[in-house]
Amino acid sequence: MNAPDFNAVCPLPVSEYPRVLMAHGGGGRLTHQLIENVFGKAFSNPILDTRHDSAQFCVPAGRLAMTTDSYVVHPIFFSGGNIGSMAVYGTVNDLAMSGARPLYLSCGFIIEEGLPMKSLERIVFSMRDAARRCNVQIITGDTKVVDKSEGNGLFINTSGIGVIESSVTIAPRNVQPGDVVLVNGDLGRHGMAIMAIREGLQFDSAIESDSAPIHEPVLQLIAAGIEIHCLRDLTRGGLAAALNEIAEAAGIKISVEEKSIPVREDIHAACEMLGLDPLHVANEGRFVAFVPSKNAKEALKIMRQHPVSVGSIMIGSVSETSTPMVTLKSTIGATRILDMPSGEQLPRIC
Amino acid sequence: MNAPDFNAVCPLPVSEYPRVLMAHGGGGRLTHQLIENVFGKAFSNPILDTRHDSAQFCVPAGRLAMTTDSYVVHPIFFSGGNIGSMAVYGTVNDLAMSGARPLYLSCGFIIEEGLPMKSLERIVFSMRDAARRCNVQIITGDTKVVDKSEGNGLFINTSGIGVIESSVTIAPRNVQPGDVVLVNGDLGRHGMAIMAIREGLQFDSAIESDSAPIHEPVLQLIAAGIEIHCLRDLTRGGLAAALNEIAEAAGIKISVEEKSIPVREDIHAACEMLGLDPLHVANEGRFVAFVPSKNAKEALKIMRQHPVSVGSIMIGSVSETSTPMVTLKSTIGATRILDMPSGEQLPRIC
Repeated sequence: MNAPDFNAVCPLPVSEYPRVLMAHGGGGRLTHQLIENVFGKAFSNPILDTRHDSAQFCVPAGRLAMTTDSYVVHPIFFSGGNIGSMAVYGTVNDLAMSGARPLYLSCGFIIEEGLPMKSLERIVFSMRDAARRCNVQIITGDTKVVDKSEGNGLFINTSGIGVIESSVTIAPRNVQPGDVVLVNGDLGRHGMAIMAIREGLQFDSAIESDSAPIHEPVLQLIAAGIEIHCLRDLTRGGLAAALNEIAEAAGIKISVEEKSIPVREDIHAACEMLGLDPLHVANEGRFVAFVPSKNAKEALKIMRQHPVSVGSIMIGSVSETSTPMVTLKSTIGATRILDMPSGEQLPRIC
Repeated sequence: MNAPDFNAVCPLPVSEYPRVLMAHGGGGRLTHQLIENVFGKAFSNPILDTRHDSAQFCVPAGRLAMTTDSYVVHPIFFSGGNIGSMAVYGTVNDLAMSGARPLYLSCGFIIEEGLPMKSLERIVFSMRDAARRCNVQIITGDTKVVDKSEGNGLFINTSGIGVIESSVTIAPRNVQPGDVVLVNGDLGRHGMAIMAIREGLQFDSAIESDSAPIHEPVLQLIAAGIEIHCLRDLTRGGLAAALNEIAEAAGIKISVEEKSIPVREDIHAACEMLGLDPLHVANEGRFVAFVPSKNAKEALKIMRQHPVSVGSIMIGSVSETSTPMVTLKSTIGATRILDMPSGEQLPRIC
């Protein structure tokens, strides 16, 4: 962040500009005005407010986690969220998947010229609310404006820092035969919420994205001493991609049962209409946890105490194999390979 | 980063895809192939190679700095660099401006469908070389692909973490009457290198961007015990924006002398042709340092030992004022206010 002064003279209120101009990204007075009046006001905290080239903070000695994600979801507003809240939750969730307590976020905005200022403000204020909900601070940022195209209006990068307070190592390679697979709720809603808007589909009730932070149940599992072997959020590529990656990394076989995997009726119907497999569809508030079977019951009990994982359930188990694979036992009893999604099903879903 | 397995099966070499497809951002097999065969190979290091949702590293107790920047420069290749090397140096430089030793970077790629794979590879390999030059590691990343437009081909976000090893506080508010202003070399080359391509200008010799890492002279100034009050890199908005921001933040007057400010003849000529002020033009390897006048001579001596700041020179001084301002004494002896650039001079310069 190239640091403008918090008290810089801002002769015109942002409201005089109904849309974002190229000059808002030029590094001059309009950039400073935008930073002070929109980002600075929404995200204000002692670290951000120093307006340095870098944000500064103190840490105790130990393990930190760092992650980054760029969000290009199209459209930028959808049922159950928007690109801003999603950018905060998504990066918080990536930190949580390493067992880290999320602390600080950076955010980089790439804005398309002509984006309504009101849309930008609405997104920024949802980021503020999302950050408060997750108890993280947005401590540094950057703003660029690019030429008007047929594009999205806005891309957001969020990078995050968290602290790993336990000595547990949570990693795909730690998954072992005898582990069970837990998932924290129904699948496919985020992807289908986006597709429903894009394809103009009408349903009896709106499909809401599951976009939500999942760090709280994870931190509580760790605090309770559950021996978590691996965690993975079920974003692009859905459950199928996540399980295949883990099977490869650990050199094991994962067997899941279709009848245990929670997918809502309307999501099933929408997927069928579009020729999609709900197990390939992206989620933004769902994760799998691999734990030893002896811990399954207690882990599910803990997860179900949190609204975001009230629908937690065991969907499968891990066994030895000479060839890593994921199998799915269908509702009619047949078993098939659950493959990695190969091509592009759902572009710009996150 | 949604972590694909390092050993995931990649049935087709990346070279079978001459251009980036939407599917390279879909989270399926093509995404993993791109990550393994391009990013994973170029950036390989023990932290990245674990392919976690987050990167993990250990730190001693103390002060860290974090920064983020998105790069949207157009065109993506230019004389003296490209968007990739610039993204590494720019974030390294932002960390250095807080007196931090740069350690780790994340990088988020937003690729336009249709970008030649060779261009992407060339950029990724310059990022690798730039990271080596700065002794930083790229430890986590993210890849998205967006629809083809008339755009840039590629946006890159780099976020960075550095460690602040001294107890010095380097900040605009610390600038004091009696300080002098040092700059590490000639101004305006990055902006004019980009504009020359865009406007199709021909010069006797190519204008090369000054894009370069500036952390080494900074860390050496700190190690030598120079009492640095403030550092600022002269990117968007150039020298004029940087000095105005600092004058406002510190509530002081900064007086600079035009005849001391190094600007090459060809840059002057190019600026005149395009109606630009070289003091408003972006640089990517230039910074100002505010130090007490008693330290000026030693500071310049240290700075001049590094190739990136061999042309270091004193350009002005700081005095008390009731109204913060920046004044420029011109070569003919007249003094005028050097104002903050107001509008958009040079869109997408970084």
